[in-house]
Amino acid sequence: MSKTQTTSADSPRSRAGLDLLVDVTGPRLRASLTDALRDAVRSGRLVAGTRLPASRVLATDLGIARSTVTECYAELVAEGWLTAQQGSGTRVATLVRPLTEPTAAAVTGPDDRRAIQGLVPGSADFAEFPRQQWLAAARRALAAAPYSAFGYGDPAGRMELRTALAGYLSRVRGVQTEAERIVICSGFHHGLALVAEALAGRGAQAIAVESYGLDLYRALLSEAGLRIPPLTVDDQGARIRELRDLEVGAVLLTPAHQFPTGVALSPERRAAVLDWARSTDGFILEDDYDGEFRYDRKPVGALQGLDPERVVYFGTASKSLAPALRVAWMVLPESLLRDVLAAKGRVETVSVLDQLTLAEFIASGAFDRHVRSRRQNYRRRRDQLIAALARRAPDVRVRGMAAGLQAVLELPAGTEGAVLRAAAASGLIVSGMAEYRHEALDPSTVDDGLVINYSAISDSAWEGALDLLCSVMPGR
Amino acid sequence: MSKTQTTSADSPRSRAGLDLLVDVTGPRLRASLTDALRDAVRSGRLVAGTRLPASRVLATDLGIARSTVTECYAELVAEGWLTAQQGSGTRVATLVRPLTEPTAAAVTGPDDRRAIQGLVPGSADFAEFPRQQWLAAARRALAAAPYSAFGYGDPAGRMELRTALAGYLSRVRGVQTEAERIVICSGFHHGLALVAEALAGRGAQAIAVESYGLDLYRALLSEAGLRIPPLTVDDQGARIRELRDLEVGAVLLTPAHQFPTGVALSPERRAAVLDWARSTDGFILEDDYDGEFRYDRKPVGALQGLDPERVVYFGTASKSLAPALRVAWMVLPESLLRDVLAAKGRVETVSVLDQLTLAEFIASGAFDRHVRSRRQNYRRRRDQLIAALARRAPDVRVRGMAAGLQAVLELPAGTEGAVLRAAAASGLIVSGMAEYRHEALDPSTVDDGLVINYSAISDSAWEGALDLLCSVMPGR
Repeated sequence: MSKTQTTSADSPRSRAGLDLLVDVTGPRLRASLTDALRDAVRSGRLVAGTRLPASRVLATDLGIARSTVTECYAELVAEGWLTAQQGSGTRVATLVRPLTEPTAAAVTGPDDRRAIQGLVPGSADFAEFPRQQWLAAARRALAAAPYSAFGYGDPAGRMELRTALAGYLSRVRGVQTEAERIVICSGFHHGLALVAEALAGRGAQAIAVESYGLDLYRALLSEAGLRIPPLTVDDQGARIRELRDLEVGAVLLTPAHQFPTGVALSPERRAAVLDWARSTDGFILEDDYDGEFRYDRKPVGALQGLDPERVVYFGTASKSLAPALRVAWMVLPESLLRDVLAAKGRVETVSVLDQLTLAEFIASGAFDRHVRSRRQNYRRRRDQLIAALARRAPDVRVRGMAAGLQAVLELPAGTEGAVLRAAAASGLIVSGMAEYRHEALDPSTVDDGLVINYSAISDSAWEGALDLLCSVMPGR
Repeated sequence: MSKTQTTSADSPRSRAGLDLLVDVTGPRLRASLTDALRDAVRSGRLVAGTRLPASRVLATDLGIARSTVTECYAELVAEGWLTAQQGSGTRVATLVRPLTEPTAAAVTGPDDRRAIQGLVPGSADFAEFPRQQWLAAARRALAAAPYSAFGYGDPAGRMELRTALAGYLSRVRGVQTEAERIVICSGFHHGLALVAEALAGRGAQAIAVESYGLDLYRALLSEAGLRIPPLTVDDQGARIRELRDLEVGAVLLTPAHQFPTGVALSPERRAAVLDWARSTDGFILEDDYDGEFRYDRKPVGALQGLDPERVVYFGTASKSLAPALRVAWMVLPESLLRDVLAAKGRVETVSVLDQLTLAEFIASGAFDRHVRSRRQNYRRRRDQLIAALARRAPDVRVRGMAAGLQAVLELPAGTEGAVLRAAAASGLIVSGMAEYRHEALDPSTVDDGLVINYSAISDSAWEGALDLLCSVMPGR
């Protein structure tokens, strides 16, 4: 019933030096030929750079249709085993996929022979990116996208994503908005730059910031020509009453989970900052970078929900999914919408395909499931961190553990530098409070501490990192 | 052998009002249950908002494992038929995918009842986006990506993409570069803004531009504080010798296929502009927006290949794939690299996932195949346009047809406005030369004409648009 055809270098009919065993009459002829060629490349019998016979020649050789050979070549080119270049025919590829192997070295830095564990804010356990579910959403989004979606896009963002976010943010964070008030940006950094430009254009000369935070954002505001006076952060969050003595057009806050100390802005201060904004015509810039991650109590709703006309809400996919998406969002007061869109410009800059995929990812429920699974994992790590410290370093006080991805381990005054050095020497990279401290901060208010991002590394590395951490904490 | 279990509202065991016919003993039990539920939603028997029974309840009802029900629900949530929300259980979705139907209305604008055909530059036949091949590349890219790829990314761009582009641009456009000299940006607009900022930072006060081009780019340069004196465009491209009388730090050119006139910069002028750059320490900004599309003769190589230290090369995926990717690239002289990277900032803004996918799309040969297929299609349309005009409007002279996606149909002086109005009245949107004319252009040099983008619409609309176009051209 089936006839096996061998073409080999010994055969006078073969001009290709190919030695393939192919069932040329079976129902899966093309698959059989494709498999045989793939095996030949994989096993090294066909070496990189080898030119394959022209499809016409191989078809004649095997006594099969030329289109079968063409399709087979095309498939192997698509899979990366072969390359096709006009003028030089089809050749065995020099680079065989995967281009880059996911190795431990890629995660921890290739230069160090010892395992380096990092618990530094800003990184995350990228092994948790839901590759399969993301691809499934991309497939559905691309299949459903109208032709017009492949164009330049609306600088405000794709309506599918803005609609999905409006529902999600309302449900999960208590944000009050319509899709029309949401603007997509490439990250919090991009959004903050646009809002700073809009506020500066309306005459703002200063924006208050928390006394601890990322220097990247302070630098961004300074470069936009704005002064950035600090508000002291204590265990109730930023001291809002200090705003009274500052002439600022806005205040940048992390109300749900102060970065990096992890404290939540107290209810009194939430009310006070809204009062301040209403009475001064000022704006609150609410950086809700990890609002999805809350462990001990009911989520603290977004401040934006209390006064959508005075709060600019910022959210991001960087913490919940991955920074690699470069997708974030702003919910804007009506009065700022036009100026922020003008700052964004006439040309969309955020990937429209990723926007469509994220819209589908949210609408399908996959985003909720992913966040829930991550939350469970981070809660477990937090509990392990608390238990390990209680056992091995009982004098260390821990702050900011009720939510989010990081917490602060308080250190005796003057010891931060020594602990960081001891950690680094034992193979653990962590960061200290000093890295996040506002340049203008009164030195008498300075607290030593480690900022521990317990979401930063993979499950397999976590226990070792926790052990190292405990071993470098100061004893009683 | 198989047992069919019906659960219905009439059955005392059913608490869900579900009426499903499921083969509970067959090998495809889960698929069977999934199909039954999907059909119930699709047919409207289960209406939007209906709460489904808890998985435990339905499993008991049907006498099957609870995990089977859970998996089935999860699949239908992923497909968009159901929604799952914590606290409110699983419900029939109100929005049934696809979110947006690809309809003619979506392509041509929903407000017009008549078919509107558009041949306007800047749009493309988005129906040609290779959705399947792109998804296949995304799948391979995501599978191969190291964990670290999901982080914030290098602001210069992913090395995988820069490496793939270095090979591609060398092979296809004669660009001389290493991956390290390539910087990824979100579009030509973004790249031009970064280079303008770098040049202004080095003291440049003016950049010469072609007398015809996109006003968007002229506006961008003006807003960056640069003067933009024009170089007259004739049938050999921009008149380079006019640069002698202008004090400019750089000149923005479209050498391979002038936009919009379509002429190629003559060999003499290519040499002359390089001489100018070398003798004045100036830079040539080479916008190679459609360099892949050449029909009549061998490709005109990139100017960059002649002097990589004096030319900034700009390429984009917007014409060859789709603007929706928001991915473009620059090849920079060594002397500008640091300043352009500084202008881009410390944070990557371009989707890392799209960068990885495009790298794989190029490396696998899919990009070459896609461009080749598009080129054949555009060449056929170009030939049809030439033939139709020769037959029906033989007095019309056509320029710029040797390459690219657009050409100019010359019109008798003073008739452009009337022809545009006649076209619009008959349902054809085209643009005239006036739209692209530099504000400072000497009125005596003005040529009337239509700019026809023959890549702008789908195959099915093309013949009708061509017919309309011929019908509005001025007769003998």
